[in-house]
Amino acid sequence: MISFVAPSGTGKTTLVEQVISQLTASGLRVAGVKHDAHRIELDTEGKDSWRMRKAGADTLLVGANQLAWMSDVTPSPSLEALVELFFADADIVIVEGYRSAGLPTVLVERSEVSDPTWRRPTSEILATVHPSEVERAVEAVRTHISSGANPTS
Amino acid sequence: MISFVAPSGTGKTTLVEQVISQLTASGLRVAGVKHDAHRIELDTEGKDSWRMRKAGADTLLVGANQLAWMSDVTPSPSLEALVELFFADADIVIVEGYRSAGLPTVLVERSEVSDPTWRRPTSEILATVHPSEVERAVEAVRTHISSGANPTS
Repeated sequence: MISFVAPSGTGKTTLVEQVISQLTASGLRVAGVKHDAHRIELDTEGKDSWRMRKAGADTLLVGANQLAWMSDVTPSPSLEALVELFFADADIVIVEGYRSAGLPTVLVERSEVSDPTWRRPTSEILATVHPSEVERAVEAVRTHISSGANPTS
Repeated sequence: MISFVAPSGTGKTTLVEQVISQLTASGLRVAGVKHDAHRIELDTEGKDSWRMRKAGADTLLVGANQLAWMSDVTPSPSLEALVELFFADADIVIVEGYRSAGLPTVLVERSEVSDPTWRRPTSEILATVHPSEVERAVEAVRTHISSGANPTS
């Protein structure tokens, strides 16, 4: 796993998109994990799949070209357990929003962005990049993969 | 697996909700599968998790009390493969919308509803119930479980 961390407004997600695109284009199996501390509500209230889930069933919604599996869980399993379950065959798992997990980190910074509440992560920093430095970020991920790091840990 | 089938407008989903609630309340692990032939779009365009998925990563969205795993897949895996992958430990999988799978079926009918395009399924009919007959539908599911049917087949 590798974490991308940035102050809000830096353009991190655009960078992460581009990094994922490049890695998948080169044949790597890339998985993403996004943590949102708030209640997420993906499905639409009242839809059949929403109603099945609210009644207590883990629910799989199958479309022509998309799959979604949804579950109400309290408390949430650990990041490690989730990645082991869902992404055991991924080459790399890119994580957003699990600051406290202490994962090896690509720090995304832009001097124009100043956020007084921002605190640098205390985890290992693999690279510090500007959001436009896609190649450097891809290289940091590739180096991490080839270091033999277990993709799920 | 057990399929619930009904003409449109019968009130099937309300019945399925109640059946799932009763089964889960009795301690059974119930899973749901909803097939929608159309393109589904669960996540919200532009959100971080949506962008990770569109870039090519299977994506897990983790909230305070909900998990969602999303993948763009073409073609969709078989129902059997999906259930084996996601619901291997379920006691029963309740399926909506896989008419051609030929699953044992609870047929939900209401005489007031008349749909000229409706065709009865040709699969095994375990019970034919009115949408208000929750107990009878639950009983049909329980009988199917105790018949020793493999929940994932």
